[in-house]
Amino acid sequence: MGGHANAGYHPLTTETVVQVVAPLNHFADVNQLEIKEIGDGNLNYVFHVVEPATGKSLIVKQALPYAKVVGESWPLTLDRARIESEALRRAAEYVPALVPKVHHTDERLACTVMEDLSDHVILRKGLIQGQVYPKLAEHIATFLAQTLFHTSDFFLSPLDKKEQVRAFINPELCKITEDLVFTDPFFNHETNDFPEALQSSVEALWNDLELKRETAKLKHAFLTRAEALVHGDLHTGSIFVTADSTKVIDPEFAYYGPIAFDIGQFFANLALNYLSHFHHSPDPQQRRTFQEYLLEVIEETWARFKEQFSQLWQTKGQDVYMQVAGVEDDFFERLLEDTIGFAGCEVIRRTIGLAHVADLDSISDEETQLRLKDKALTLGSVLIKQRRQLTRITHLSETIRGVAHA
Amino acid sequence: MGGHANAGYHPLTTETVVQVVAPLNHFADVNQLEIKEIGDGNLNYVFHVVEPATGKSLIVKQALPYAKVVGESWPLTLDRARIESEALRRAAEYVPALVPKVHHTDERLACTVMEDLSDHVILRKGLIQGQVYPKLAEHIATFLAQTLFHTSDFFLSPLDKKEQVRAFINPELCKITEDLVFTDPFFNHETNDFPEALQSSVEALWNDLELKRETAKLKHAFLTRAEALVHGDLHTGSIFVTADSTKVIDPEFAYYGPIAFDIGQFFANLALNYLSHFHHSPDPQQRRTFQEYLLEVIEETWARFKEQFSQLWQTKGQDVYMQVAGVEDDFFERLLEDTIGFAGCEVIRRTIGLAHVADLDSISDEETQLRLKDKALTLGSVLIKQRRQLTRITHLSETIRGVAHA
Repeated sequence: MGGHANAGYHPLTTETVVQVVAPLNHFADVNQLEIKEIGDGNLNYVFHVVEPATGKSLIVKQALPYAKVVGESWPLTLDRARIESEALRRAAEYVPALVPKVHHTDERLACTVMEDLSDHVILRKGLIQGQVYPKLAEHIATFLAQTLFHTSDFFLSPLDKKEQVRAFINPELCKITEDLVFTDPFFNHETNDFPEALQSSVEALWNDLELKRETAKLKHAFLTRAEALVHGDLHTGSIFVTADSTKVIDPEFAYYGPIAFDIGQFFANLALNYLSHFHHSPDPQQRRTFQEYLLEVIEETWARFKEQFSQLWQTKGQDVYMQVAGVEDDFFERLLEDTIGFAGCEVIRRTIGLAHVADLDSISDEETQLRLKDKALTLGSVLIKQRRQLTRITHLSETIRGVAHA
Repeated sequence: MGGHANAGYHPLTTETVVQVVAPLNHFADVNQLEIKEIGDGNLNYVFHVVEPATGKSLIVKQALPYAKVVGESWPLTLDRARIESEALRRAAEYVPALVPKVHHTDERLACTVMEDLSDHVILRKGLIQGQVYPKLAEHIATFLAQTLFHTSDFFLSPLDKKEQVRAFINPELCKITEDLVFTDPFFNHETNDFPEALQSSVEALWNDLELKRETAKLKHAFLTRAEALVHGDLHTGSIFVTADSTKVIDPEFAYYGPIAFDIGQFFANLALNYLSHFHHSPDPQQRRTFQEYLLEVIEETWARFKEQFSQLWQTKGQDVYMQVAGVEDDFFERLLEDTIGFAGCEVIRRTIGLAHVADLDSISDEETQLRLKDKALTLGSVLIKQRRQLTRITHLSETIRGVAHA
């Protein structure tokens, strides 16, 4: 598996990328393009292609046959370009306004030509700066409800569902999540990354048998539950925003997995941002307001998600059991429990695992950073272990508030 | 989907089947073969090929591009021949003595050449006759533990597991189970089949909201939980036996599903046989002895399954969580709950759904048949609704005994 390039694959350059966009007839004159590589170079090339005369632009994203993380390099399947492109197209069937438009896919070159979103900022960055996005909850709720419902057994015919499962089998990217989200942070593993001063808290976590038993169940769910086509990496770095626009990007981790996983990752990254504002918002009043805004985003996202999903359930449900009294309630009850559990895993792995978040890591004051990371570990553990008792979305926001201010 | 024949496919006849076996060099003289079609002709042709001079024999099983049930005919994928053949080969890696040996597979003709088991009888038939099979529990426990463990995430690498999921996607056969096991019997559906005198009991079942809510969860598990390569149709008609040999046949329903499904189907069919002996064993002492034997098979199968699965877990487990204290207990706890739930669904569908069992249907006395079918409905409902309280295998046997003798 992995790493083997397709026949005819070659890494694009700022010179050769024009060959990809020329046939699309998007630009007036492909000899007058300004092309810059703007990716971080770890997994993909991202070319920003602009035609100054017309103001037109495009993004060309190409998968590289390897991944580079902290100096290490390992082979990684180019098939993820196909997965990402197909997942964006699937999402566009239901929420075209909430994903970048895909203009073209070249499987040989493992690249996708898509809408340029340079006028947007990465949500994580905006939230660190204390920006409020009034449409965020509504948009993410819509994205989640529409994409998850329409790719699940609740909507698809049994035969279509299985064909979709087959098309989105994504073993290598799933393995990254299995390892980095669900396993390594809970054991003394070399990929972990945390300040030495956090050692005793981390060891307490590694020695918490109840936590590990519960995390084992969540990992097993991630491994086995083919419920819907999930985005698979829905943190605040995979969301582009403006004041009134939201775009979900980068679904290269998409696969058939638990519906709760996407929701949980989103909530976890809001919770991490919440903690980080003890530093980023020095003014207590301003801080309180912004932190409460973040909890409102969580509560509103859940409420609107539930509302929309429920409406789809009632109007477009294909399974006769969906009309049986109580079945829908049972579904949402278990969904919230799973969501909170997955959120707990994400909070922990972003704190001590391989891939951190700028929210906490950008905190210059070492002691504050440490204190907040310690709180993050507590929060993650509580969410995983007490998820069955947190039966309302307000229990989640109360838990975040409570742990943060303890 | 479905029904489209492969290029080059043609139904075999007793004349043409020799072309399939000739290249195998199994027989001394392929011009001296005796060939009989012995299948029931509903889904497959089954040719029994014998060479009287040498006493050698083979079975040639060919999938037909349609299914015939109660006069109706609908197209059905020939891919099930590939699935069956590959599932038998997978099982043979771990339990070669417990499946028929596959000599040859012809994908074009959707046919499999395999070991002749004419010296065996169908377990269902043997049990109806009150035959005791001392090795049955041990063999089925071994079959279940070995095939389910070795195809699960507990043993396979994450990448291998996903490739196996892909290879065994089996939408059309799964749909049959989704409809006939999990859906139709719980609603007033035209495929259902029960005596008019059972109408009020059946209507009570259809109106039991708690039962339907719980069955909805079990159906959802069948639809979404890709835990291991399950046989998918492990009733007592899929098992061939002699006094000391057991062979599991016909895995054309194989797919990645819940581990508990196979175990539950097996237990359910033993429970139905238990009920049927109120008729088949008129002598009370003999009846009691045989009924208790059936419960011992259930208890011993579970105990030995657990023992072997646990040994594999401890010695060959590939996931680091498998060594965390309590994780294995959690797994078996949930497995028993699911097993009992799936058993309940099977008991109900075999009583009022499309496909009945000879155990009950062969009862000549109408009133007895009716009384036992009524008990079967009660048993199935109790198993589904109370599965979370039935936390030991003896609770299952006590429930069967209790409902039967109530």
